[in-house]
Amino acid sequence: MADEEGRSARKRRVIMEAATTVFLRHGYVGTSMDEIAALAGVSKQTVYKHFADKERLFTDIILGTIDQVAEPFHDQVLGLEETEDLEKHLTALARRLVAIVMQPQVLQLRRLVTGEAGRFPELGRTYYERGPGRTVDTLAAHFQRLAERGLLRVEDPALAASHFNWLVVSIPLNKVVLTGDDDAFTAADLERYADAGVRVFLAAYGRS
Amino acid sequence: MADEEGRSARKRRVIMEAATTVFLRHGYVGTSMDEIAALAGVSKQTVYKHFADKERLFTDIILGTIDQVAEPFHDQVLGLEETEDLEKHLTALARRLVAIVMQPQVLQLRRLVTGEAGRFPELGRTYYERGPGRTVDTLAAHFQRLAERGLLRVEDPALAASHFNWLVVSIPLNKVVLTGDDDAFTAADLERYADAGVRVFLAAYGRS
Repeated sequence: MADEEGRSARKRRVIMEAATTVFLRHGYVGTSMDEIAALAGVSKQTVYKHFADKERLFTDIILGTIDQVAEPFHDQVLGLEETEDLEKHLTALARRLVAIVMQPQVLQLRRLVTGEAGRFPELGRTYYERGPGRTVDTLAAHFQRLAERGLLRVEDPALAASHFNWLVVSIPLNKVVLTGDDDAFTAADLERYADAGVRVFLAAYGRS
Repeated sequence: MADEEGRSARKRRVIMEAATTVFLRHGYVGTSMDEIAALAGVSKQTVYKHFADKERLFTDIILGTIDQVAEPFHDQVLGLEETEDLEKHLTALARRLVAIVMQPQVLQLRRLVTGEAGRFPELGRTYYERGPGRTVDTLAAHFQRLAERGLLRVEDPALAASHFNWLVVSIPLNKVVLTGDDDAFTAADLERYADAGVRVFLAAYGRS
């Protein structure tokens, strides 16, 4: 029975990996469940046993990828409100955030979702909520507590969290999603953008 | 002769309008020159007389749209370095900028280019250079002169200009390109984001 469950989970993972490859290669509209089944080496019925339809499969891939890559960020944000060195903690968090967002697989999914947003807004909403939306919500809650401790001057925690997020990631992210040049920035470049974003953020929201 | 030129310019415009419609409906890959010719009511030879190939036609549409919508921004930025009220001038500029970037046609082209960036990076580079790239270059030159006048504290004008640009547009732009919901923000919402972006920018880069 446990063996049966293990085999089913493995098959699910193989299907998701094959589907990611096919989606990124042909786009959402150009992808068929037949092709995914063929690449995964399973029958089409098996694909449908795990995923009700193409949209569900695609949504599960987005959620799986985002949740997996975002885990280290959400780990690192824990304890932010008890920090004894806010700038240091925020800088580490900012560096982690930009490194996550700039991973090729994340960028590729982002492009794919963006390209289909006009036709399939539900996919985009899911990506937004689980990606930047969740990041901003998490940061806002921590910034609120930092403000209560007198370490930040924040009237609107959600706005401050959005400013933090986009100050850190916007410059490289918005360039690379358009140009397709995923290697345009080195890890050191990304750290410099993260550090500069934190400096601007603290100038506006830090204790004066 | 003048009449002949006028007719040619009109035909060119009709082809570009038809092409924009077809590209936005079917994506770059899904669009054929045949379909564009049919919608424009001209022969395929006429399309090829004006545009060497599909990529050239698409590039011309991007350049035409961006240059046209960006004109009011570049008009407004003139004289920024002689301003007597920097916050007021920057706020007006920020409001103009976010209004331009959030126009549905600009958003739709941005999604289209983003979705194709993996396969056609040249299109994305063109969009980037003529859009955000040009905005940042223009701002950087003005910020440099404002720093020389002692009105801004700026070590790296390009970085400061990028921070200004993304502080102003990132929150609504990055949400809407993903969710496809072009009407998510009212004009008043956009102005509030512009104003808040300017406040953060001046906290970091304004005269202390």
